[in-house]
Amino acid sequence: MPEYKAPLRDMRFLIDEVFDFAGRYQALGATDASPDMVSAILEEGAKFCEQVLAPLNRSGDEEGCHFDNGVVTTPKGFKEAFAQYVEGGWNGVSSDPAYGGQGLPHSLGLLVSEMIGAANCSWAMYPGLTKGAMAAIHAHGSAEQKQAYLPRMTAGTWTGTMCLTEPHCGTDLGIIKTRAVPNADGSYAISGTKIFISAGEHDLSGNIIHLVLAKLPDAPAGTKGISLFIVPKFLLDASGEAGARNAVACGSIEHKMGIKASATCVMNFDGATGYLIGEANKGLACMFTMMNHARLGTGMQGLCLGEVSYQGAVKYAQERLQMRALTGPKAPDKPADPIIVHPDVRRMLLTMRAFNEGNRALAYFTAQLLDIEHLSDSAEERERAANLLAFLTPICKAFMTDTGLEVTNHGMQVFGGHGFIREWGMEQLVRDCRIAPIYEGTNGIQALDLLGRKVLGSQGKLLLGFTKLVHQLCQANAEHPQLKAQVAQLAALNKQWGELTQKVGMAAMKNPDEVGAAAVDYLMFSGYVTLGYFWLRMALVAGQKLEEGAAEAGFYQAKLATADFYFARLLPRAAAHLAAVEAGGETLMRLSAEQFAL
Amino acid sequence: MPEYKAPLRDMRFLIDEVFDFAGRYQALGATDASPDMVSAILEEGAKFCEQVLAPLNRSGDEEGCHFDNGVVTTPKGFKEAFAQYVEGGWNGVSSDPAYGGQGLPHSLGLLVSEMIGAANCSWAMYPGLTKGAMAAIHAHGSAEQKQAYLPRMTAGTWTGTMCLTEPHCGTDLGIIKTRAVPNADGSYAISGTKIFISAGEHDLSGNIIHLVLAKLPDAPAGTKGISLFIVPKFLLDASGEAGARNAVACGSIEHKMGIKASATCVMNFDGATGYLIGEANKGLACMFTMMNHARLGTGMQGLCLGEVSYQGAVKYAQERLQMRALTGPKAPDKPADPIIVHPDVRRMLLTMRAFNEGNRALAYFTAQLLDIEHLSDSAEERERAANLLAFLTPICKAFMTDTGLEVTNHGMQVFGGHGFIREWGMEQLVRDCRIAPIYEGTNGIQALDLLGRKVLGSQGKLLLGFTKLVHQLCQANAEHPQLKAQVAQLAALNKQWGELTQKVGMAAMKNPDEVGAAAVDYLMFSGYVTLGYFWLRMALVAGQKLEEGAAEAGFYQAKLATADFYFARLLPRAAAHLAAVEAGGETLMRLSAEQFAL
Repeated sequence: MPEYKAPLRDMRFLIDEVFDFAGRYQALGATDASPDMVSAILEEGAKFCEQVLAPLNRSGDEEGCHFDNGVVTTPKGFKEAFAQYVEGGWNGVSSDPAYGGQGLPHSLGLLVSEMIGAANCSWAMYPGLTKGAMAAIHAHGSAEQKQAYLPRMTAGTWTGTMCLTEPHCGTDLGIIKTRAVPNADGSYAISGTKIFISAGEHDLSGNIIHLVLAKLPDAPAGTKGISLFIVPKFLLDASGEAGARNAVACGSIEHKMGIKASATCVMNFDGATGYLIGEANKGLACMFTMMNHARLGTGMQGLCLGEVSYQGAVKYAQERLQMRALTGPKAPDKPADPIIVHPDVRRMLLTMRAFNEGNRALAYFTAQLLDIEHLSDSAEERERAANLLAFLTPICKAFMTDTGLEVTNHGMQVFGGHGFIREWGMEQLVRDCRIAPIYEGTNGIQALDLLGRKVLGSQGKLLLGFTKLVHQLCQANAEHPQLKAQVAQLAALNKQWGELTQKVGMAAMKNPDEVGAAAVDYLMFSGYVTLGYFWLRMALVAGQKLEEGAAEAGFYQAKLATADFYFARLLPRAAAHLAAVEAGGETLMRLSAEQFAL
Repeated sequence: MPEYKAPLRDMRFLIDEVFDFAGRYQALGATDASPDMVSAILEEGAKFCEQVLAPLNRSGDEEGCHFDNGVVTTPKGFKEAFAQYVEGGWNGVSSDPAYGGQGLPHSLGLLVSEMIGAANCSWAMYPGLTKGAMAAIHAHGSAEQKQAYLPRMTAGTWTGTMCLTEPHCGTDLGIIKTRAVPNADGSYAISGTKIFISAGEHDLSGNIIHLVLAKLPDAPAGTKGISLFIVPKFLLDASGEAGARNAVACGSIEHKMGIKASATCVMNFDGATGYLIGEANKGLACMFTMMNHARLGTGMQGLCLGEVSYQGAVKYAQERLQMRALTGPKAPDKPADPIIVHPDVRRMLLTMRAFNEGNRALAYFTAQLLDIEHLSDSAEERERAANLLAFLTPICKAFMTDTGLEVTNHGMQVFGGHGFIREWGMEQLVRDCRIAPIYEGTNGIQALDLLGRKVLGSQGKLLLGFTKLVHQLCQANAEHPQLKAQVAQLAALNKQWGELTQKVGMAAMKNPDEVGAAAVDYLMFSGYVTLGYFWLRMALVAGQKLEEGAAEAGFYQAKLATADFYFARLLPRAAAHLAAVEAGGETLMRLSAEQFAL
């Protein structure tokens, strides 16, 4: 099993040297997030993740969750680790102090969740889903509801879920069958079956607060008729403690390819007592509060697993002796050279590194937007951040998970046959990562969201908000002595991005299928260019540091080399996606459904 | 679990309409392979695979193999299925009649093995490894050895293995530690540990014939000092039957990501009696006889699993109702449209189809080369076939497995969340496929073989043997009314292939690392162009059939549409690989080994 070490140096490079988190915290009035506080959180968080969570990762995968007559038991050690997590106050790092949180900026919460997700992806699901449920209650719940649930969820003694999917519908939530019938006391009786409910039942917390999508009896058809309900596992007694058991039960847990220590539950609601959250029939909006949180979190999964995979692969490549370098022995005293001398092993490692570090930059930039959206005094700045966030969220979710899957597959490949053997832990990372392009809206749905809703839906305005940043960066560095070739490459792609969007937009006016036909390749094109932007920013900083004669020259050289690699060997993939988009939808739509089976 | 149906229509399209197997069989004097015989084998083979092997695929994955004190038990039903396989004479379809085989052409054997591998990838490993061992004994064994082992291996009552890998070496067989010490009677005492031995121990056959790489006491260092030995599990008694147990034992079996029903064994040789096969210290050549067989077989694994995945995904996409088409409801009487109306689902299905059918064409073309190599009277024709085979084998192995892995991942994605759940069977296909890019020489090693040994090693001659075919096809169809755009696209890429090779060759003369830096992207570029050639051939045939007013117009239209899709949306990926090759090795080699960990 690769041993996870929180990549604090790379994290600090981004927060201190590229994005100036400290300066931004100050500007936003987030004075609690002092440099000392940030350091303490990173260092203590790293310790907890490396020493408590990481050691449970492989054993959790081997053992999986247990189901017995409605009771779900998590793997050995999970409960104790969760208790430590609660004890340490980790769940409330970036939560509202009104309910017991530490009130630190969201970006800091994201750094903590990165380390948690890397150390133990399955375990991370339990607090991860809780955060999404908290966000929905915080944004849409009544004062009473917030008071009833948020303090304990913030502490982590209660956890949460998102109950959306049903056997016949996942993407298409407009056709859910779960019903909510009003009770005399203002509550509702919720009946139906939900599937794929992560953390739906387990032994980690004293109560589980389900957020459940259901339809009122008189609800309009489709997504305009779905409402969101709070359905606690244990109803609250007069003192607000977990009291009588509610009529919700786990019917079974799924046997999955990966994230086996995360309980994926079938949840049966048999007239369970639920409480409407937000307005009736406006559940979709509430749901998106959870979903947007979850989408960023899911994108992080690609980065987290990719990081662990990289750490394992580098170590193995430095130690495993196999063949001589093509240019002659590099370790003549040993029976063979370490495989890191081989160009193709380096190609895999650099691909992993370029995606990981690029994705991390994208994620931290996005996290900073969350801070601005929540904390800025300026409405204009808040709107700009919200728009960029809306634009980048589907890219984070889809691009980071698709490339994360590629990264974990490379990591496995570096290990050769050993990569396929469970005890080495590399194949688990692939299996754990494979769900990320599927759940919280498949990557195909993210692509439709990006191209259809966000870009074309805003008449290109949301795209422009980002391409303008790229344009400005390119313009400012057009004559950069070392990087002008990369700047020109990025600028050209940025221009193509706009042109491509116009082309698709025109085609879509004639035929809406053109949006669907273009979407995934459009998103991937966008992802490659977006990462190009962040790699250029990182390269500029690294180059400057070297020029200033900073210490750790090796670190900055590695950053520059990885940037060069990204521009030379990965960014050209954008052209293939561009060509696919430009090919249009005709070759996709020509066949009848029946012909697909001929 | 997707239900496997042998794709007989598509197989017949290739063997009858594209490659004219019957005419070729006649020309080669393979008169036993009459059209009736071919039909009988395909139909009976399909029945056996669909009805006997396929039903054991998922149960085999769930149960896995059992290890108890050196004894390996295969999953329930495997033994009975193997007995039926032996009973039906399937193992000897294309084997030498001198040892009881049916002597049918190798291409026919490949069609049978395709169906077996698709129906049950793990089960297929047992006869698959046996074929490789048989090939080595047939090519390099003494008359006595052939007589002793081949009849029973041909029948399938004995099986075989390839014992190459050791804990410290897989790729680098020059540093194996297993020793062979001469005995007084001309046999050898073999001692050492071999790992990752597929079918190393099991309960399917009466004896297991291990082919073991080992070093003689006075052997030169490196690959020039390895020899191959026959080490039977049971020594042969005076009547040639399995007699006393040899000193070889299974120490444990691996717990793996996939192909769980295939026993992957640690084999301990403790002075086991072995018999030299071929010349001393010339084991590498013998090994390559097995390896080349195995490499083609491994490439087929990508096709086999991709085919099953496609069948499952199409059926699901036709049945699963989710969302309305972007152009308005297509099944207004149902709560939602079947997802096959959505362009992005079609994109995934067509990608799967384009790779599967293209890979099948590549494989069958290669199989035909095997026939020519074995059966042609003309030395020149045999040499041409052998050269093409040498060139195409690493492409088959690496491109077909990498794209097979992509295909099975798309199939899983089409199922959404259900794809991640074991009972649906789609994730097993991904796990089973994931080993294929690793074993029998990683795809990185295949790429070095292609670019270094085959292409540059022959001064481009082996490449020219294939690009000439592409050139001729393009030239003959340059003015084709429907396909001239695709012809031009392919011709341009074919030209770039030659230019790129020259460029890499020049760079490699200055710096051998340039070969390693280019290899994988060079192979992928080659694979995309190669499949373009076969897609053009298939499109030409399909177009002609439609022009002739053939029945089954829908089938030929689908073929044409898939060809268009391949040229429009997949072949552009070649450009990204081209760019990566052209970027050269500098960005790969710049970092020190230590900097990778910074």
